[in-house]
Amino acid sequence: MSRFDLIIIGSGPSGRRAAVQAAKLGKRALVVEKRQRVGGVSVHTGTIPSKALRETVLNLTGWRERGFYGAAYRVKKDISAADLWQRGAKVLEHEVDVLDHQFARNRVATVQGEARFVSPHRIEVRRTSDGEAEHFEGDRFLIACGTRPHRPTHVPFNGRTVFDSDEILKLEELPRSMTVVGAGVIGVEYATIFSALEIAVTLVEPRATFLDFIDRELIEEFMHELRDRNVSLRLGAEVTAVEFDSAGRPICRIASGRDVTSDVLLYAAGRMGATEGLGLEAAGLATDHRGRLSVDPKTLQTAVPHIYAAGDVIGFPSLASTSMEQGRLAALHAFGLQPQSPPEHFPYGIYAVPEMSTVGMSEEEVRQRKIPYECGVARFRETSRGHIMGLQSGMMKMIFSKKSRRLLGVHIIGEGATELIHIGQAVLNLKGTIDYFIDSTFNYPTLAEAYKISALDAWNRAFAPSAMPPEQPAIDDAA
Amino acid sequence: MSRFDLIIIGSGPSGRRAAVQAAKLGKRALVVEKRQRVGGVSVHTGTIPSKALRETVLNLTGWRERGFYGAAYRVKKDISAADLWQRGAKVLEHEVDVLDHQFARNRVATVQGEARFVSPHRIEVRRTSDGEAEHFEGDRFLIACGTRPHRPTHVPFNGRTVFDSDEILKLEELPRSMTVVGAGVIGVEYATIFSALEIAVTLVEPRATFLDFIDRELIEEFMHELRDRNVSLRLGAEVTAVEFDSAGRPICRIASGRDVTSDVLLYAAGRMGATEGLGLEAAGLATDHRGRLSVDPKTLQTAVPHIYAAGDVIGFPSLASTSMEQGRLAALHAFGLQPQSPPEHFPYGIYAVPEMSTVGMSEEEVRQRKIPYECGVARFRETSRGHIMGLQSGMMKMIFSKKSRRLLGVHIIGEGATELIHIGQAVLNLKGTIDYFIDSTFNYPTLAEAYKISALDAWNRAFAPSAMPPEQPAIDDAA
Repeated sequence: MSRFDLIIIGSGPSGRRAAVQAAKLGKRALVVEKRQRVGGVSVHTGTIPSKALRETVLNLTGWRERGFYGAAYRVKKDISAADLWQRGAKVLEHEVDVLDHQFARNRVATVQGEARFVSPHRIEVRRTSDGEAEHFEGDRFLIACGTRPHRPTHVPFNGRTVFDSDEILKLEELPRSMTVVGAGVIGVEYATIFSALEIAVTLVEPRATFLDFIDRELIEEFMHELRDRNVSLRLGAEVTAVEFDSAGRPICRIASGRDVTSDVLLYAAGRMGATEGLGLEAAGLATDHRGRLSVDPKTLQTAVPHIYAAGDVIGFPSLASTSMEQGRLAALHAFGLQPQSPPEHFPYGIYAVPEMSTVGMSEEEVRQRKIPYECGVARFRETSRGHIMGLQSGMMKMIFSKKSRRLLGVHIIGEGATELIHIGQAVLNLKGTIDYFIDSTFNYPTLAEAYKISALDAWNRAFAPSAMPPEQPAIDDAA
Repeated sequence: MSRFDLIIIGSGPSGRRAAVQAAKLGKRALVVEKRQRVGGVSVHTGTIPSKALRETVLNLTGWRERGFYGAAYRVKKDISAADLWQRGAKVLEHEVDVLDHQFARNRVATVQGEARFVSPHRIEVRRTSDGEAEHFEGDRFLIACGTRPHRPTHVPFNGRTVFDSDEILKLEELPRSMTVVGAGVIGVEYATIFSALEIAVTLVEPRATFLDFIDRELIEEFMHELRDRNVSLRLGAEVTAVEFDSAGRPICRIASGRDVTSDVLLYAAGRMGATEGLGLEAAGLATDHRGRLSVDPKTLQTAVPHIYAAGDVIGFPSLASTSMEQGRLAALHAFGLQPQSPPEHFPYGIYAVPEMSTVGMSEEEVRQRKIPYECGVARFRETSRGHIMGLQSGMMKMIFSKKSRRLLGVHIIGEGATELIHIGQAVLNLKGTIDYFIDSTFNYPTLAEAYKISALDAWNRAFAPSAMPPEQPAIDDAA
């Protein structure tokens, strides 16, 4: 029986990063993956396929060009479901190759099969290849098993007209209408991507609000855009059942009685930790009602100190980016190292259409903490780059402390938001003030100029001398 | 006769910014513009039209999609010259509207006509509308007249087959071949944009190197890409004459005898300050042999202290972005204000195909200053976002001080370079180190992840403990 310094269950972003980190420390690491190929949900049914789909839809529809060529402009007239998945399949191959190579290069051992704890330091793996069971002993473990879609019993999933968020990638024909249940990150991303294909989408969410970790003004802008292109948004709509009409179309029954019938229904209300079958009780561990594990957020240790958990299985924020960092920190801690504490602020990226990204405090948070503040807003259409791209929407909002002049938060909706946010993130983490943006030169023409424009907007509201005497310094407003 | 606190000759980026700044200070500002409409070269024949052309070419050819759909992929099969200028015309309208509105809102006076100094404090403006001369007195002046193409006598410009860089926008038919003389920013941008349309381009430069303010490794990458798609690059090729063959096609005579014949020739070797006719001698000023004015770089004052100059007329770097900042600083200084000294580092953006952007020191500069350093390189194809976009090229190079760990320079070539550079710019100006990139979380998938990958590359070369004992901290290599 083989013994390893670290056994990692799952090869998604957190598992992969932990394995490579352990290997770099000279440790023997084993990754157990139950799928045929490495990569986890991120590569196979989650992050990568949905982002590849998004890119494909934007390209094939000519979405980014409509500002110039009109709303009727199309790059490809008849888009088939096969067109949609073509890019995703290529990207997936590429990603898996990169991972395989990374594991080989760093001498990370891998085994394909289902893992189950038989004791706190031992797992049994039923190999996919021959069905045989093999035992492995580990000094340390990392549970990075990810999640699977929550499939409540009142939803008649069939993989043809009623899908969960993993199955939706198997859609074989483009529907004319779609109901998406659940306005979390996944539901919002798919709803808006399919809506860009001019599928009539209804987004149903039982709660009265959604994506609550994002600044409300950004969400209001987002809702406005969705409604403007005919996405029906049903907040506070509790789903009581999903049935079929006589033609076999799914009916989404809503408590209020305002049911929604569509060609296809995507149920994306929550995911469960993929912990069933892991034999956690044999390791002395228990999960919450959604199969998730809780950990010490600083060390990523579970209740059993030599067993760590990272990635989606520990819950929020469940982003590939943060999961990678968790995996790295867990591996460092597992081998007695105290990593430097990471920069305070990390970004959230929502790859919807339009995309959103945010870092630091929302206006709601700043208010709650009673910090005197001012906001500045810039519209992408105020930038020359925005004119050149034909952008009609997109905005940036920055929040500054009135006292310290420090940047407190940046919130972006629109083209390139997930890339642009990192400029604000650097200024935030390196403790820059509003003056950084006022005095810096930005490439012209770029969307990044929105940083200067929104800073000037805030400056003119709260930082300019209130009654401007003739000889006082002043800043032009760029707009 | 009217008197103004500040009279500005020219309404391009520097003139406009100075005018608005003066107005915000409560000063009476007058802008004299000789064209029919405001905006200067930047809006009418320079920055904006060339960037709009670039965007149009990339879109209509499907340039960004070829990584997925193959080199033969086209969005539009037969692209006409009219297709090319369509977007530019719309953008120009929009930009001029924004400027008109900005001047009106800030109560900046404007007059259309040719300005000429009659004394150090007085100009005569010959109004375009009625040809009448009007005199204006100013306490301060800003010469922001920009440049015009250098048109040497041995080049038979005709606006049909031999163009300067302002005229090229009037190209009425797409040629099959083009010679571009001059590998400065303008020549390089147009050469690569037209090459993306599959026009056979020959780029001729008398010097042995080009774009010398950019890191050599980036330029080598750039040259490789150009040659890979069949742009013929002729460095060290002195142009002795431009003649026509019997079919009327321009022949570019090269000193070496290796002449180049093509359908069209674009002469883009240098620009002259548009100072002729300004009557500078009456103001006590003289220009260099290229019509340019020299100024104190801190205050933007010419040899005559109450007369400032800014923008392209004062020479390098001649970027719209830096010109705007010069205009602002000149106006502040003109009215006795000492603006905060701006952040040390500003970016250069070259909107070629592929685009390039750079901030801070090049490797050549770091060596010259004898600073111990290490570089890290990332290829865009190492990022998941790169896979999704189908990018086959694009790279980032970062340079760090080995002693202080500080970032010294960032150099990017490829999609989004001019936007991405601002992340490095913020870290550079706010004095961040390699650890910022190692410890930060980046949105996944983004091209911005290249910052982390190139930082890890540098770290593994020079910042990781040299012989890694088992219990030492280490960083995984992400790739």
